[in-house]
Amino acid sequence: MSSVVVLAGQVGGAKLADGLYRLRRDALTVIVNTGDDYEHLGLAFSPDIDTMLYTLAGIASPSAGWEPENETHAVHAMVRRLGGPDRPVQGDRSLAAPLLRAEGLASERRLTDITLDFCRHLGISARVLPMSDDRVRTHVLTDDGAVTFHDYFAQLGCEPAVRGFQYAGADFARIPDEVLDALHGADLEAVVIGPANPYHAIRPMLEIDGMKRLLRRRGVPVIAVTPIVGGRALRGSAGKMMRELGRELSARSVAGEYLRLIDGFVLDIEDAALTQSVRSLGMEVVALPTIMRSIDDRVVLAQEVLDFAAAIRERREAEVE
Amino acid sequence: MSSVVVLAGQVGGAKLADGLYRLRRDALTVIVNTGDDYEHLGLAFSPDIDTMLYTLAGIASPSAGWEPENETHAVHAMVRRLGGPDRPVQGDRSLAAPLLRAEGLASERRLTDITLDFCRHLGISARVLPMSDDRVRTHVLTDDGAVTFHDYFAQLGCEPAVRGFQYAGADFARIPDEVLDALHGADLEAVVIGPANPYHAIRPMLEIDGMKRLLRRRGVPVIAVTPIVGGRALRGSAGKMMRELGRELSARSVAGEYLRLIDGFVLDIEDAALTQSVRSLGMEVVALPTIMRSIDDRVVLAQEVLDFAAAIRERREAEVE
Repeated sequence: MSSVVVLAGQVGGAKLADGLYRLRRDALTVIVNTGDDYEHLGLAFSPDIDTMLYTLAGIASPSAGWEPENETHAVHAMVRRLGGPDRPVQGDRSLAAPLLRAEGLASERRLTDITLDFCRHLGISARVLPMSDDRVRTHVLTDDGAVTFHDYFAQLGCEPAVRGFQYAGADFARIPDEVLDALHGADLEAVVIGPANPYHAIRPMLEIDGMKRLLRRRGVPVIAVTPIVGGRALRGSAGKMMRELGRELSARSVAGEYLRLIDGFVLDIEDAALTQSVRSLGMEVVALPTIMRSIDDRVVLAQEVLDFAAAIRERREAEVE
Repeated sequence: MSSVVVLAGQVGGAKLADGLYRLRRDALTVIVNTGDDYEHLGLAFSPDIDTMLYTLAGIASPSAGWEPENETHAVHAMVRRLGGPDRPVQGDRSLAAPLLRAEGLASERRLTDITLDFCRHLGISARVLPMSDDRVRTHVLTDDGAVTFHDYFAQLGCEPAVRGFQYAGADFARIPDEVLDALHGADLEAVVIGPANPYHAIRPMLEIDGMKRLLRRRGVPVIAVTPIVGGRALRGSAGKMMRELGRELSARSVAGEYLRLIDGFVLDIEDAALTQSVRSLGMEVVALPTIMRSIDDRVVLAQEVLDFAAAIRERREAEVE
């Protein structure tokens, strides 16, 4: 079976990755954003990696996809009782990976190896890989200065207007060998960019030195799926950020973020009217049901995305002949 | 109200401290063993401090006094699922203090300040103080070499025969100012050594440079309460250790550990026949019901111990006159 690479972050990215995983199993490599990683109480939180692991392992909460199902909050309650910080701490089960990750990193283990170990123990046959073993932190630029995305989210409640982003460390971060191997796979059929916030979930990965060049030159279709449907973000703060950055709040703006990088863009059927307008940016476009409410929705969308990539590849090959 | 200092570790020590606390409230200072402290998954565990805090705060489990009541184990279950170590990890609530402690120590805060902060937030008006802010680790000497007490307990299940103990760091550890202040208090009426394993719960405190000299010269009655009743340890491995160290398995052996340090020794009524034999070691002796099954038992024993100290003090004063 030919292989697939998906670049993903957040719950939407994890859901599409899960659809691809159910189609491709061990022929799937998932590259995950670590720009939102943070340290708290000495623990190493990697929200997008953990969301991905719980989702692919089938243990994510249906209602709160970023944490394991049946989450409890005994540690946090006791931390508060002892006078610890009031900021939202993860639930009990959600602390296990950050605990083990912090210990592994303190022992000089690579985040890649730690993450692959988690995959193995959770029975995930796909490879979930951090975008880099080097530290990259997304900073949100506000009128009061730059703050890490985590602080913007957890301490500022995403309140301050966003004036821009910085990806601290991305220029010097290296792409792990495992990511390079996956992207250079001889049987690679498509690279998929999952439906997630383009600014803090996807772009950190693209900003790593060499990543965009590699994707452009690789010669396999790169397909992005919109996180914006009908002029609103499916979840999270992408819509608010777009407005504050002076962008049009639409799927077209997302496509614009991936200009000269992607070959195809997946709109939601609700936005089918935008097809021509996005196509004029210089990419192929298809409108599909992108909202994934059920496991079946994930698989159907994943298959449609792979079919879209296959069609692009075939047209290209026909052009070459 | 005159003040009392108790040196304590383990559940027995915490129970007697709780009895004293209910009598003396903010006139009580509790000095706690930290020789059994250990690090695991980057967290800073202080078992005797936390047992004391839960007990004095009234939130200790009735059946497992070293942890908060209604303890759950979600973090450990997930740690195991992710391939983390199999060794017994604390329950969820029990992780909060070690998490905050590790963060505080990493921020160069003193263990004393961290512990007093916990007291304040838990509403404990007594002062719970670590025996030192410097690192002291009790090592158990076995035929296969020395291991930390925590490894002896958690990894070796207290199996190997005990040949001796070492208190690494005790020679260079300093007594915190707060402990010195309590022991020098002008209104100090008694120093009580709680019923706990003499080798790894009490002696680490006595081994700290200057502690024994200070207790001997202070001039207030020092009273120890037996952890051995009827030739067996109330809990834990004190009995096994005594046998392996070639000591007689009796309350008299405990009294012998405190020779030339204590003025009075509290036997259990079950061992009243040993009174004369222990007295011959050169200390006053009283036989009391030392098994604390209820909160009332703790208060009654605490009052009897203070009465015993008062009687010793009065006799001494009478002798001087």
